[in-house]
Amino acid sequence: MTLASQITQAQSTGEPSSKTNERESFAPDTLSPEELALIHAYWRAANYLSVGQIYLLDNPLMREPLLAEHVKPRLLGHWGTTPGLNLLYVHMNRLIKARDLNTIYITGPGHGGPALVANAYLDGTYSEVYSGITADTDGIRALFRQFSFPGGIPSHVAPETPGSIHEGGELGYALVHAFGAVYDNPDLLALCVVGDGEAETGPLAASWHSNKFLNPVTDGAVLPVLHLNGYKIASPALLARIPESELADLMRGYGYDPLFVTGEDPAHVHQLIAAALDTAADKIAQIQHDARENGVTDRPAWPMIVLRTPKGWTGPKVVDGLPVEGTFRSHQVPLAATRTNAEHRDQLEEWLRSYRPAELFDDEGRLLPELQALTPTGDRRMSANPHANGGALLRDLRLPDFRDYAVEVTAPATQMHEATKVLGAWLRDVIVHNPDNFRLMGPDETASNRLQTVFEETTRAWDAITFDGDDHLSPDGRVMEVLSEHLCQGWLEGYLLTGRHGLFNCYEAFIHIIDSMFNQHAKWLKTTRHIPWRRPIASLNYLLSSHVWRQDHNGFSHQDPGFIDHVMNKKAEIVRVYLPPDGNTLLSVADHCLRSRNYVNVIVAGKQPALSYLTMDAAVAHCTRGLGIWEWAGNTDGEPDVVLACAGDVPTLEVLAAADILRRNLPELKVRVINVVDLMRLQSEAEHPHGLSDRDFDALFTADKPVIFAYHGYPWLIHRLTYSRNNHKQIHVRGYKEEGTTTTPFDIVMLNDLDRFHLVMDVIDRVGSLGSSAAVLRQRMADARLSARAYTREFGEDDPAITNWVWPSE
Amino acid sequence: MTLASQITQAQSTGEPSSKTNERESFAPDTLSPEELALIHAYWRAANYLSVGQIYLLDNPLMREPLLAEHVKPRLLGHWGTTPGLNLLYVHMNRLIKARDLNTIYITGPGHGGPALVANAYLDGTYSEVYSGITADTDGIRALFRQFSFPGGIPSHVAPETPGSIHEGGELGYALVHAFGAVYDNPDLLALCVVGDGEAETGPLAASWHSNKFLNPVTDGAVLPVLHLNGYKIASPALLARIPESELADLMRGYGYDPLFVTGEDPAHVHQLIAAALDTAADKIAQIQHDARENGVTDRPAWPMIVLRTPKGWTGPKVVDGLPVEGTFRSHQVPLAATRTNAEHRDQLEEWLRSYRPAELFDDEGRLLPELQALTPTGDRRMSANPHANGGALLRDLRLPDFRDYAVEVTAPATQMHEATKVLGAWLRDVIVHNPDNFRLMGPDETASNRLQTVFEETTRAWDAITFDGDDHLSPDGRVMEVLSEHLCQGWLEGYLLTGRHGLFNCYEAFIHIIDSMFNQHAKWLKTTRHIPWRRPIASLNYLLSSHVWRQDHNGFSHQDPGFIDHVMNKKAEIVRVYLPPDGNTLLSVADHCLRSRNYVNVIVAGKQPALSYLTMDAAVAHCTRGLGIWEWAGNTDGEPDVVLACAGDVPTLEVLAAADILRRNLPELKVRVINVVDLMRLQSEAEHPHGLSDRDFDALFTADKPVIFAYHGYPWLIHRLTYSRNNHKQIHVRGYKEEGTTTTPFDIVMLNDLDRFHLVMDVIDRVGSLGSSAAVLRQRMADARLSARAYTREFGEDDPAITNWVWPSE
Repeated sequence: MTLASQITQAQSTGEPSSKTNERESFAPDTLSPEELALIHAYWRAANYLSVGQIYLLDNPLMREPLLAEHVKPRLLGHWGTTPGLNLLYVHMNRLIKARDLNTIYITGPGHGGPALVANAYLDGTYSEVYSGITADTDGIRALFRQFSFPGGIPSHVAPETPGSIHEGGELGYALVHAFGAVYDNPDLLALCVVGDGEAETGPLAASWHSNKFLNPVTDGAVLPVLHLNGYKIASPALLARIPESELADLMRGYGYDPLFVTGEDPAHVHQLIAAALDTAADKIAQIQHDARENGVTDRPAWPMIVLRTPKGWTGPKVVDGLPVEGTFRSHQVPLAATRTNAEHRDQLEEWLRSYRPAELFDDEGRLLPELQALTPTGDRRMSANPHANGGALLRDLRLPDFRDYAVEVTAPATQMHEATKVLGAWLRDVIVHNPDNFRLMGPDETASNRLQTVFEETTRAWDAITFDGDDHLSPDGRVMEVLSEHLCQGWLEGYLLTGRHGLFNCYEAFIHIIDSMFNQHAKWLKTTRHIPWRRPIASLNYLLSSHVWRQDHNGFSHQDPGFIDHVMNKKAEIVRVYLPPDGNTLLSVADHCLRSRNYVNVIVAGKQPALSYLTMDAAVAHCTRGLGIWEWAGNTDGEPDVVLACAGDVPTLEVLAAADILRRNLPELKVRVINVVDLMRLQSEAEHPHGLSDRDFDALFTADKPVIFAYHGYPWLIHRLTYSRNNHKQIHVRGYKEEGTTTTPFDIVMLNDLDRFHLVMDVIDRVGSLGSSAAVLRQRMADARLSARAYTREFGEDDPAITNWVWPSE
Repeated sequence: MTLASQITQAQSTGEPSSKTNERESFAPDTLSPEELALIHAYWRAANYLSVGQIYLLDNPLMREPLLAEHVKPRLLGHWGTTPGLNLLYVHMNRLIKARDLNTIYITGPGHGGPALVANAYLDGTYSEVYSGITADTDGIRALFRQFSFPGGIPSHVAPETPGSIHEGGELGYALVHAFGAVYDNPDLLALCVVGDGEAETGPLAASWHSNKFLNPVTDGAVLPVLHLNGYKIASPALLARIPESELADLMRGYGYDPLFVTGEDPAHVHQLIAAALDTAADKIAQIQHDARENGVTDRPAWPMIVLRTPKGWTGPKVVDGLPVEGTFRSHQVPLAATRTNAEHRDQLEEWLRSYRPAELFDDEGRLLPELQALTPTGDRRMSANPHANGGALLRDLRLPDFRDYAVEVTAPATQMHEATKVLGAWLRDVIVHNPDNFRLMGPDETASNRLQTVFEETTRAWDAITFDGDDHLSPDGRVMEVLSEHLCQGWLEGYLLTGRHGLFNCYEAFIHIIDSMFNQHAKWLKTTRHIPWRRPIASLNYLLSSHVWRQDHNGFSHQDPGFIDHVMNKKAEIVRVYLPPDGNTLLSVADHCLRSRNYVNVIVAGKQPALSYLTMDAAVAHCTRGLGIWEWAGNTDGEPDVVLACAGDVPTLEVLAAADILRRNLPELKVRVINVVDLMRLQSEAEHPHGLSDRDFDALFTADKPVIFAYHGYPWLIHRLTYSRNNHKQIHVRGYKEEGTTTTPFDIVMLNDLDRFHLVMDVIDRVGSLGSSAAVLRQRMADARLSARAYTREFGEDDPAITNWVWPSE
């Protein structure tokens, strides 16, 4: 019987009889007594530094009795998860050294910031990147003081924490980040600590299945550690409260081979976790060997560890008469009144001294050499692993010239193409040229979004069972499809944060599913911009298709253009939004986005056959400006009577059709047509780096003429972007006003008053005093709307006279 | 060996050897030959009506040869999942009749709309609620025509579909809705079909654990059916591509007792599914009996069914030389060109005739009586079950008089209270008075959000293992805590949609996790308002606390006030946003929200000790108006020189402190203070039912004086709400501009220029020409900011001179 199976069998049956369910009957001796003593001492050092960060302003090594003024007045931090994180850190250090592993540490319970900071300090990285935090007593004092302190560092595993690609402030994404990190990194091991609180979230529950998308040959490995400390803030954690046999079933059902480590006696747990990590590392090595050397293609059962230790382990057992260690009361700060309550302060002093700091640090406050010797060195330190500072590893994409993929446009608005399909051919070759550095994510919508040309050269990543007749599946596919926007987003984040590139294609409405994940990534990017040692990473690129105006077949639930609004609340320096109206502009925008760094780029584009407007040269020029007058569509070189503005493919079509009607019927009316690709151009230059100056804005949109703005999304956004413009009072916006159902494309447009006929009516109403011909035209437009609706109700499709409209030849 | 265990054992081992892995060795004979024939005929009828909806404009019963003009020009619908949904429907009808069950049908694959419409038509409900869709040939023609047709009905299981509380347009929420529906409905059984696509989503993956929150005594039962038809739009479905033993482990790990039904021969599958449903119903009855009669308290292993049948079952096997039945190609419309391609049309004709409609419907187009006899009657029909039209069952809450819970406010802004704690006492008694009709949801934050007073009278719902020292857990708790905002939201939606009441309390930042679920619920509400037979349901109420300004300890990841912006994109008739500044106003607002119907109410309130402003009487008057001048805080009865407006507790504090500074230092400056509770009041009356008229707005905010608006969230929202107001150019907004970290509360306020000192500077800058004393004051304010920052950097807490500010006594 192997050690691994002993651990599994010893630990995985029956109900937990107590919170930790220690089984003294089994005690491996993986660690020699000397090794055990050293590892335990290192763990004590990490725990000591963690408690010190939460509590101490001064007296960093407890060389004096603890006084009130040594304690921070405001205590902010999370102790509960910290000792477990420290335990795993020191044992991973041992594993890395023993096997020369290339490892990053993903901290699901990211509020356990003290642990990761302490370990980065102990292995020397912290002092290397933050020169003020020296490896001596003053450095420890500064380390303690800065934690959760104004002007200092956050309480969580934040971008400021060396070795982190994962804050864990919003819970649920540890495991999906870990998998994203190891895809196409065959040498990398991601240790991923999943808190038992986080394990209750939907995204985490789905993330376990990421193993079906991992190729043991070309991807690295994830070692999940489900850390059961039993409680969240106040409630118990679900997975800590089901029979261990049920939990084992669950993990096996997810496709893992679980190892259980349970205990509260440190010496015992050190031996168990060391043995479990050895076993897991052996299994991973065996799986990779089998796949890489022996050609084994069956999906393996990857190891994972269930670690059950007390919450707030080694902290105060009882405070004010209530149990703390092992309960939810140890979640944050177990002793809350240490500055004013002498009894609490005494308990804190006892707690700190229980780690025997004098036996860990020398007179200068340096970690003793024999403990220093336990850490890996250089890039092998998890805190210094370059994969956790992905920009340091970033290679530029090899991008084929997008101009070569242009569609020919002999005259504007006369030929039809599918914009995303045009892009698909270029993406196919992006994939070909970057076989290990680019991935295309999407929730089973790659073909639906008309990017299917990529399958000429790649497949969908898939390491589960296949059948004859499946469409383009293999373990090494560059396209990742799973019906979970959370996984698509999380994998891509992990992939980008470790220095690679990618694109997430999604139905526009359902990208809201990851609103909150976008928030967290945007916040990460904003923060890293101000951390000198963090190198820029590739931008997070979204391609939103199957958009609001062409979800006529799926109906109201699929119609929501609000992600743009959501994105706009984040810092201007981070976010970019593009609405290319056709295939050539989409190519130009996509090329720009894939070259950019540290942004979130949102591209909204159509997939249905639609008119093309610009030649490639014109598209490049137009996209470079971000917006511009389409002279050919207007009828004046000079000051117009009215501006017709548009952003988005369907609004552009309707504006052009409206301009055509106006030019034919009211030729004296001077119309200017402006198309906006880069939405940020509308903002003031004070608000966004792409913003137009007021002078340039006025030159385009005039200072006082009516502007009828046909916009892709919710109309209020245009008001928000332009509220400070001189001409704002005259800007009249049409967009999606949440009127939808299953109907025809033009009917949806009409339901929201964005149609060409209504735009003409808007022009007439806004310009005013256009005389009787305008009044006649207005009535004709109203009638045209009624006719169009009657046609669809009669025939179930749009009137071809409308759908076949093209720009008239001169 | 019981039948159940035979099914399990026969079906749950080994790998699927083919897609459907039929095992002929086992064939139960649950159905007599006559019953089998009738059930099969009924299933054919449902399938026939489903195909007819997708394809036919005319010739509804195929009494003539199929011509091109009989076929819709635009084919929109989803066939793939439909036969499986129909299969379950007819077999559930049998089960309901046999046992007089009270059952609703939750359709995870909601795009299978044709199935649910067909079944509601077959059992007569459809014709009852839609009188134009009669039970005859004309009715069938109309039924077919309306489907996915302009002016008709959506293609999904939409609000228009009788018997539905779940659209399933956005996937992931079927199971959580099902559980929400059965909580406190001991008599109800929710059949929940989970598609194998949907099963990949995070929310669904977490939803399985809802069984740990279900009390077999007082709650009903959910019977999940995981329907493996093998494919999503293009990719295979994960759970269909893991070994069956692994899937069985997964389901057992989730706490279920799985029954496997696999096949493609209809007669065989009819017998298997009938036996499986009988077994499941027996188990459920036994579990409920044990819990209710015998006092068994162990968490039971509830049954669930894995149904593996071909996608697009009974549809075309091969189209244009490519396999369709059993593949992803049957997902939507298997024959795409039936109007123009005669071969496709021949195949469609053959397909439709394969169901032998002449043997199912009589000459008038009525379902044959022996088939009609298979359906339950009256409310027992799943399409007519009142639980699926929850408003019909809605009982008003018994609300204690909130005035009795008021805090005493002897003078404005001089006494401190914790607003949410004030609310907690009232909520405690709401729970007491509505023991089976109200639930409080939250992701383990009920106590953190200071609502802990509720635990004086109730507990957290919990049906997993408990330990000594756990805090308020029991199976019948009224508080539902799980670290998944998705589950909190989904349970509450299911609870509300079946006619009950509730409140979701959440950290403000993380409510974005359910942005998309909110979208779908708001769309559902909007649609139901226009469906006469849908009765109004209780509003969806959010209490957002631990808000952006008081996440100083958790840092940047916990700071996001953007949910309000997100909500505002939905229809004005649905959404309401309230920002009560203190405890008494919170009580008044909460009472109003819990009484309301068919809205989404968002309440943002503080949990930290903060100043109270209004007596209960004043609070009621203020909340009734929604906004108003606080005369006591200003220094003019007449026209002011400047308006200081505020919305939210922290902005209100800062505005009042700024007003205090201004009144002391620039007594000649006439200041008006306006507090806004109901954010919708700012909009134009044309945009929102709560909107102020321009005249009223001008009377409050003036037509031309500077307005300094301190707002809780992202400042742009105020511009969006007021852009059309006369005085918009003069409205200057301060709010959260995405500057955050771990620091002190006042430092966060300063980082975003919302602090009292900066507001005074804003006033001086905007009013202009205030002379030298103003210039001096401005400099003092700038210095005060520097001092405040220096204080926090030195001491790690805010200057007590700032935090202790109260409104001066006159």
